[in-house]
Amino acid sequence: MTADQAEAVSPDAITVILDRPAQPGNIGACARAMGNMGLSRLRLVRPRQFPHVEADNFAAGAGAVLAGAEVYHSLAEAVADRNLLVAATNRNRGQRHTVLTPRQLGERLPAELARPATRVGLLFGTERTGLDTADVERAHWICNIPTAGPLGSLNLAQAVLIVSYEIMLGRGAGRSMAFDPATQGPRASTPELERLFAHLEEALTAIDFIKANQNRHMMGSLRALFLRAAPDSREVAILRGMIHELLTARTRKSAP
Amino acid sequence: MTADQAEAVSPDAITVILDRPAQPGNIGACARAMGNMGLSRLRLVRPRQFPHVEADNFAAGAGAVLAGAEVYHSLAEAVADRNLLVAATNRNRGQRHTVLTPRQLGERLPAELARPATRVGLLFGTERTGLDTADVERAHWICNIPTAGPLGSLNLAQAVLIVSYEIMLGRGAGRSMAFDPATQGPRASTPELERLFAHLEEALTAIDFIKANQNRHMMGSLRALFLRAAPDSREVAILRGMIHELLTARTRKSAP
Repeated sequence: MTADQAEAVSPDAITVILDRPAQPGNIGACARAMGNMGLSRLRLVRPRQFPHVEADNFAAGAGAVLAGAEVYHSLAEAVADRNLLVAATNRNRGQRHTVLTPRQLGERLPAELARPATRVGLLFGTERTGLDTADVERAHWICNIPTAGPLGSLNLAQAVLIVSYEIMLGRGAGRSMAFDPATQGPRASTPELERLFAHLEEALTAIDFIKANQNRHMMGSLRALFLRAAPDSREVAILRGMIHELLTARTRKSAP
Repeated sequence: MTADQAEAVSPDAITVILDRPAQPGNIGACARAMGNMGLSRLRLVRPRQFPHVEADNFAAGAGAVLAGAEVYHSLAEAVADRNLLVAATNRNRGQRHTVLTPRQLGERLPAELARPATRVGLLFGTERTGLDTADVERAHWICNIPTAGPLGSLNLAQAVLIVSYEIMLGRGAGRSMAFDPATQGPRASTPELERLFAHLEEALTAIDFIKANQNRHMMGSLRALFLRAAPDSREVAILRGMIHELLTARTRKSAP
């Protein structure tokens, strides 16, 4: 799915639903996590305290997500217009339900969102005890976040973040400035590199770092190092400029 | 990499380094995120307040990570024993550095960890302004977390979570109870399903829901529905039990 198709999905197509959140700070942190990952529709079922200054503080730049949050009196009402419910839980429910990792969820959602009128509800339970079994059983899919080490469950907002992050990546909607010069940048051409190595050998011989009969081994090591770094043309030009100055400075110094 | 190989990596091989964390709550939340994702070594460079009760509260079950945190007076000291530095930043540094997404980082680290004596330092900057340019330039790799929507950077602990999560998945160290009965569970055999459909047709004919001359279309729709749900043997047995009871009840009722 391209970024354009990802944009085409209505904001209302994916809603985060928090069941009885106890800590207003968590509500704000959830809003911020959603905002960072491109989700904007938040529903709260019987929040203990909302609105609350702590929710505002934790939301940081995602005040709009918080301001648009809808409050419900029951989970049944909050999910009524949703036709694809995903329950986040870390408790084992046996092997009858479809239990997906966030990554699998992110990979499957685009096909579901391409079906007409899909409205996804992402359910997260209350901090201490999670979702009630009956509410998990409402869900079409269960989402279980992998963990490692002895600790148990994630903080509520951290769980919302991971699920939102994988959904964003699955939709191809994430923007990153990732760039790997070693695989994506233009490599210097072989003749450019050969001129660099010849120039370097000349300089290293001039300063007696290498002798004519030993240079094969040393130049081989230096070649391997530079080839591994895969310089581009600009970097080769910088290196050649350095070598040139070294030779020039040496000539000037050794002049009478 | 298998889970066993993942276990073989020394805990000290990967260290999270927080530069001048201002909020003690964030330090605790970072510790919890690390603990959830199997990291345990935390270093703090000039934390504004540490130890602090708020750090303890946010760490929840990850008190051991917090208790083991090492405090440094400078970033240079904190990274001195690290030989693969990864700087998390959301500012563009041009195209000279290797900038990886957390996923790419997670995919590359196992090969690096397989090299002898690799010691990774994951650097995260102070909350408001991130890492100084000079500290980013110390790093071998930059890690940039993708985002969507108008918001800028992630909360510190959220950034630590995403990076730790991808490293865990890249190492194959995450445990999840993900299970998809539709693709991983045992499907009922074709004869089991054919007996189910025959039994169902018998019952639906008995209750006059389908007539002998119309049953092909209706049974085709029902077959498609059940085949899509891909029941296992146990589910077929439950359905056949239901049909049996329906036919039996009907016979009892219609008896004189």
